[in-house]
Amino acid sequence: MTRIRQLATTDADFDARLAAICDAQGALNQSVIEATDAIIGKVRSAGDAAVVELTRKFDAREIESIEELRVSIDELQAAVARLPEGGYEQLSLAAQRIEWFHQHQKQDSWRVTDALGNTLGQRVSPLDSVGVYVPGGKASYPSSVLMNTIPAKVAGVERIVMVSPSPRGEINDWVLAAAYLAGVDEVITIGGAQAVAALAYGTESIQAVDKIVGPGNAYVAAAKRAVYGQVGIDMIAGPSEVLIITDGSVDPDWIAMDMFAQCEHDEMAQALVLCPDTQFLEQVQGSIARLLPTLERQAIIAAALEGRSALIATRDLADAAAVSNRLAPEHLELAVADPEALLEEIKHAGAVFLGAYATESLGDYCAGPNHVLPTSGTARFSSPLGVYDFEKRSSIIKVAAHAGQRLGECTSMLARAEGLTAHARSAEMRFKGDEPPQL
Amino acid sequence: MTRIRQLATTDADFDARLAAICDAQGALNQSVIEATDAIIGKVRSAGDAAVVELTRKFDAREIESIEELRVSIDELQAAVARLPEGGYEQLSLAAQRIEWFHQHQKQDSWRVTDALGNTLGQRVSPLDSVGVYVPGGKASYPSSVLMNTIPAKVAGVERIVMVSPSPRGEINDWVLAAAYLAGVDEVITIGGAQAVAALAYGTESIQAVDKIVGPGNAYVAAAKRAVYGQVGIDMIAGPSEVLIITDGSVDPDWIAMDMFAQCEHDEMAQALVLCPDTQFLEQVQGSIARLLPTLERQAIIAAALEGRSALIATRDLADAAAVSNRLAPEHLELAVADPEALLEEIKHAGAVFLGAYATESLGDYCAGPNHVLPTSGTARFSSPLGVYDFEKRSSIIKVAAHAGQRLGECTSMLARAEGLTAHARSAEMRFKGDEPPQL
Repeated sequence: MTRIRQLATTDADFDARLAAICDAQGALNQSVIEATDAIIGKVRSAGDAAVVELTRKFDAREIESIEELRVSIDELQAAVARLPEGGYEQLSLAAQRIEWFHQHQKQDSWRVTDALGNTLGQRVSPLDSVGVYVPGGKASYPSSVLMNTIPAKVAGVERIVMVSPSPRGEINDWVLAAAYLAGVDEVITIGGAQAVAALAYGTESIQAVDKIVGPGNAYVAAAKRAVYGQVGIDMIAGPSEVLIITDGSVDPDWIAMDMFAQCEHDEMAQALVLCPDTQFLEQVQGSIARLLPTLERQAIIAAALEGRSALIATRDLADAAAVSNRLAPEHLELAVADPEALLEEIKHAGAVFLGAYATESLGDYCAGPNHVLPTSGTARFSSPLGVYDFEKRSSIIKVAAHAGQRLGECTSMLARAEGLTAHARSAEMRFKGDEPPQL
Repeated sequence: MTRIRQLATTDADFDARLAAICDAQGALNQSVIEATDAIIGKVRSAGDAAVVELTRKFDAREIESIEELRVSIDELQAAVARLPEGGYEQLSLAAQRIEWFHQHQKQDSWRVTDALGNTLGQRVSPLDSVGVYVPGGKASYPSSVLMNTIPAKVAGVERIVMVSPSPRGEINDWVLAAAYLAGVDEVITIGGAQAVAALAYGTESIQAVDKIVGPGNAYVAAAKRAVYGQVGIDMIAGPSEVLIITDGSVDPDWIAMDMFAQCEHDEMAQALVLCPDTQFLEQVQGSIARLLPTLERQAIIAAALEGRSALIATRDLADAAAVSNRLAPEHLELAVADPEALLEEIKHAGAVFLGAYATESLGDYCAGPNHVLPTSGTARFSSPLGVYDFEKRSSIIKVAAHAGQRLGECTSMLARAEGLTAHARSAEMRFKGDEPPQL
């Protein structure tokens, strides 16, 4: 019998117990960091040769050159043809919806003219090139390919390179088909820290990119952290989480299954259910007991349910919203009769699912919004992956002699106040001859 | 005589020589990282007591509690009154212009409805709280207070905490006045890694913030890097740089002074001038020789000019633009007769200054756009500090029973393809009973 933690916001030790299960900030593993730094160093110094050697070693590939690790567009098309019936249609629907949603995120350049006649503005342009990391093996997900690639495509990125390890040469047809659909430009079957290093610094045959996105294991995460600054990165994701607020107006089986869906990712995943109705929470407990044995991944789910998950009795829905705001969950389901009213009280969340039918899994695949979301409370200050992550802005400052006069005076005084007299004089020269203004 | 490097894009070794002076990626200093980690550990475990102890030690403050380190709004107003004549007016002009420009960056929430009747959207909301780090001592700049605070204010951040070290209790009136003008909510005279740690993790008397922005020394940079993830950070800035493209149609003294303005920041600063007219470059060299002795910070300027700066002869303006695109400079001046035409060829830059009158120093103080810009080539993938850095987005997904049917089918098939059967069933339950669809 799976024992899921039961808490109540009225418990004296509630805050401490909640904090204990929500602290997912594992210390970085020093041996992983050192191994990763060594790999990055090798790739920076030996380039292709290092990538080939490491791929032979870690992925058991008997290859001699990077070229053997490239997957052609023809091979991607062949993978499309091997999908089961209906597969391409469903993948296409997901891709179309994701593209449609993300089109709304495109930002426009703008310029404005001030009263003096100066023109100021912001120019928005796509990054030149992006690397998308896709894990190999069991966590090799086509949905991840679509979610990481399509926003870059919508932004107008000209070169999108997908890397994914292919142990013993095996690679998932769904992933290749998704790469084809999403419009990936290059596919290279490399993985781990060596793939991240190759994308960040470039090698003889792999051109460096400007930003690297996508999930990966501890080595990939450490490598992304290490190359951050040389290139942009998306985020270092923690364990996935869902927080479900319900008023008990929904089938408890649905709530149990949504918890399972979250928990089947891995043992560190977290599902929290907050409800003012303790009887309903008991029903959910009953649903869990009944349904869990029917799940393929029940061992992982049970570990995650017992690990960091909980059923939490709250005073009312406002109390539940307050707990949610404290945690800033990655996924937030509002399985209540009036979700719009409750949304008004929500301050932080990666994605909010409104109503009992809006299960998180729709959002994971095909609702349209991105499934790459801020974890571990970072929704307080960060956002879903989006088109904006593949665009950059440049400020535009256009000044004419007569229009800049007043700015020159201001610059002169403030720069002198800061002791930066060359700053002051570069303005004074243009607008006053080289005489400092009378202060 | 200051010897500034002279290069030409036609030199056989041009690429290597350019790369050598543009590589500012200093290795992180391990002793700085270790000292910083120790300080962060102390603040996390001992809270206020650690901050007080470290502030006594590093800032020579004879204080017993954090409360003594707070600066009241009355004290800020008193600093305003002590500014020299005209000071408040110029500072206000800068603040107003920065606010006006940044108002254009505010993003709107939006929702769209798909053909099935599902509502998808993106909600934009301000961060709750932000910490602004302002260095103490000589680099304590009021312009930095305005540039880091005003975008947060425009975003609607409710709590803005400024921290700035105050060695021996001294603090700059201009900085306090700028904090008053910009609407900072709390001012605490602490600095270094201890200030960053207190803002990131909170102490008994300092409430944690969601994001920390602002420049600092190596310890502050290391601390920001260490707390990244616990809170958001702006960026880890490298040395400041300007790249000036000119056609020689401008007074060479102006170009020399713009180089000085960049170089007076510190010895690692960089000024590059690209021009197809070698005679003009010689004139600039003459201006440098004549004007440099008249500058207050000539020793720093000379070191920066000789260190990483250069006068570069190019084939033509397009060649200059190509070099600029390779470097993605923080500041780019287009001191040419037709800057709009040249702008078309520019792909990456933090801020672009159009025309001979648009000297960078106007942008540093009062043109309106932010002076916090991506350095060291990171303009390839990142943007000026802006209102968007103090806003976050949440996805909205609203589904009704009839509208979600098609999404449920798609989710079911893709989730099963990924082996995530609980994901599939959470959709199937709602839209098909609990029967898996026929695949």
